[in-house]
Amino acid sequence: MLILKTLVVVSHPKINDSQTQQFLLQGAKLQDVTWHHVEELKEIDVEKEQALLMENDRIIFQFPLYWYAAPAGLKDWEDQVLTRNFVYGDGDDNLSDKEFGIVVSTGMPLKEFQRGGSENVTIDEIMAPYFAIAQRGKMKILPVFTIAQFQYLNEQKQMRLLIDYQRYLTQTYPDSLTNRQEWFEREFADRFKNFDGTNCTECETVLDTFIQRKEDINQLKSTIGLIKQGEDE
Amino acid sequence: MLILKTLVVVSHPKINDSQTQQFLLQGAKLQDVTWHHVEELKEIDVEKEQALLMENDRIIFQFPLYWYAAPAGLKDWEDQVLTRNFVYGDGDDNLSDKEFGIVVSTGMPLKEFQRGGSENVTIDEIMAPYFAIAQRGKMKILPVFTIAQFQYLNEQKQMRLLIDYQRYLTQTYPDSLTNRQEWFEREFADRFKNFDGTNCTECETVLDTFIQRKEDINQLKSTIGLIKQGEDE
Repeated sequence: MLILKTLVVVSHPKINDSQTQQFLLQGAKLQDVTWHHVEELKEIDVEKEQALLMENDRIIFQFPLYWYAAPAGLKDWEDQVLTRNFVYGDGDDNLSDKEFGIVVSTGMPLKEFQRGGSENVTIDEIMAPYFAIAQRGKMKILPVFTIAQFQYLNEQKQMRLLIDYQRYLTQTYPDSLTNRQEWFEREFADRFKNFDGTNCTECETVLDTFIQRKEDINQLKSTIGLIKQGEDE
Repeated sequence: MLILKTLVVVSHPKINDSQTQQFLLQGAKLQDVTWHHVEELKEIDVEKEQALLMENDRIIFQFPLYWYAAPAGLKDWEDQVLTRNFVYGDGDDNLSDKEFGIVVSTGMPLKEFQRGGSENVTIDEIMAPYFAIAQRGKMKILPVFTIAQFQYLNEQKQMRLLIDYQRYLTQTYPDSLTNRQEWFEREFADRFKNFDGTNCTECETVLDTFIQRKEDINQLKSTIGLIKQGEDE
């Protein structure tokens, strides 16, 4: 199977103080992705950054929402790295067909990002400049992954978030049932591999249940298919 | 008459090389406005910047469009100066009822900023983050002043642009016929004052014509008013 290469371009001026970013970093470490924190770069080597973008299939901008956009650090990186020629000039479409995603965190509740909410604007609307870049680069745009009020999530919700985040990093797009199944199966397999021969009865039970459920679903699907076929005839 | 105080927050990393910005600077100099170039600030003194914002009635962000937003310099300024408390926290609405405008220049033709154009997005759409800031600050939003392909404008069009730009800086909002008239009259008066007693027959002719036209318009208006009144009765 072809493995998707993911680059996470992270921007946060005080990343060590950010609970959210540290949490996401733990999740990213369990995935085979490149975590690239722009504020840590001593200087921006344009060619090196461009090569990094070209090596990857999925490019994700990850940042906290500061005044309805990424922190200045990411803009500085964009202004230097994304030269016109690299993105769309002179027939070079170096980013074309790559996937583009955004992971954005905000201290406001998600419900405020709509007409009538205190922000009175949607997340998608304020992300327009990033979508425009992706469009210019002929990239495939993934739905934005928004993390609202991370500090108020209980442990269970945080864990759920972490898995959703990991799927956002590496799961095949679109987020269909089949692609989810495939992602979870691969994850289970990886986890077993990492157990290094140690017995883990619980893990095996989880995997068995998972496979059983998957078979149930496939059977249901073919049953529905047969019923539909009957109706069509 | 109450004089509007205007602050132009300009962002351009190489302002001396920018024909457009140098041209606009000449126009701004003829108006009584504060030209504030953020990249020239050695360090950002938050309190001083906030005081500057509070002193002014109309705040304009002026920049070239770099990846569908202002250059990183303005974002850095925003991230530091616009503290939450200053803009909307704790009941302090330090920007409320001030006017907010944007002067943006682009090397692309304006017609590309629409669906089907090569940018496939409107200027208003990509300005969403700035409008959201203004809205948060309870500011009055002025229509964006867009300068497209300045380098291709002939001299006459450049002069027209310069006057429109000056009006954007200091004319009473909205851009109605009455407010235009008032602005031009004030400008003429200022110019005469600056001639310092020297004769300028041409100027007097222009002013006479202008006043005559204004009177004609007022007479037309009252005639139309009378006709309408007649219809309503």
